[in-house]
Amino acid sequence: MKIRNVHPSDYPPIIAHLDDWWGGRKMSSMLPRLFFEHFSDTSYIIEKNGQIVAFLIGFLSKSQPKESYIHFVGVHPQHRHCGYGRLLYERFFDTVRQDQRSVVRCVTSPINTTSIAFHIHMGFQIEPGEAILDGVAYDPDHDGPGEHRVRFIRQV
Amino acid sequence: MKIRNVHPSDYPPIIAHLDDWWGGRKMSSMLPRLFFEHFSDTSYIIEKNGQIVAFLIGFLSKSQPKESYIHFVGVHPQHRHCGYGRLLYERFFDTVRQDQRSVVRCVTSPINTTSIAFHIHMGFQIEPGEAILDGVAYDPDHDGPGEHRVRFIRQV
Repeated sequence: MKIRNVHPSDYPPIIAHLDDWWGGRKMSSMLPRLFFEHFSDTSYIIEKNGQIVAFLIGFLSKSQPKESYIHFVGVHPQHRHCGYGRLLYERFFDTVRQDQRSVVRCVTSPINTTSIAFHIHMGFQIEPGEAILDGVAYDPDHDGPGEHRVRFIRQV
Repeated sequence: MKIRNVHPSDYPPIIAHLDDWWGGRKMSSMLPRLFFEHFSDTSYIIEKNGQIVAFLIGFLSKSQPKESYIHFVGVHPQHRHCGYGRLLYERFFDTVRQDQRSVVRCVTSPINTTSIAFHIHMGFQIEPGEAILDGVAYDPDHDGPGEHRVRFIRQV
């Protein structure tokens, strides 16, 4: 198992199977190629036996000098519960600290209870929101009409 | 008429009407809020009589030190053919030059002939692609399965 930076050539093999990784949910429109071409130095891949088993797409905010953002994380369905998500997040946290930054932000859907539990386990706090689902505050229409999001923040 | 940087608070009024600006085409999933929150210093809005009539979302590449990327441009349907697109691109080109960069990239759908003509008019060249539609080279599945893209490049 090794962790390395994303490379633009990783995009085709990842995007071809991305929706399958989410059980058929249409996710690929959220992940255009630009992130692999222009933010590869803050994005990471885990390979096992030459196969991509997990990846994280993150960047350092340009407008907010102390902030960073994790846009997308995927773990191959057959390689979950191995700690790969935690490993990727911790690698990204290191990158954020090395750039003298202190804040990591990300969002997830309020119906994605697995993701919400993961982020709380990873030390994120949930930001206030104008609505609540199952006790979790979220921001309605955060990413467009009907695209509600729980907003996470973590100091690193 | 004034041109100014994008602000995070511009996101809700823009995203609420974005699909209408494209004649009902589902575009809002391509424009998450993160671009308004973290790349506002390289993104611009044109206001006329207090109303947002056009915007450009762009950023300076983190991985490619000489490059920049225009991710999304929208012009209100009732304010087209006024030169607002050109004004936004030229403002972004200035930002790119000020950062000692020389390359602007962007992509569009091969079926969007208006966009292709606009980019050629603005001095962009079309990069080679593995397929051709109506004489225009494009990259099949560039942004995911079925998401073909014409790739543009311009020196500034």
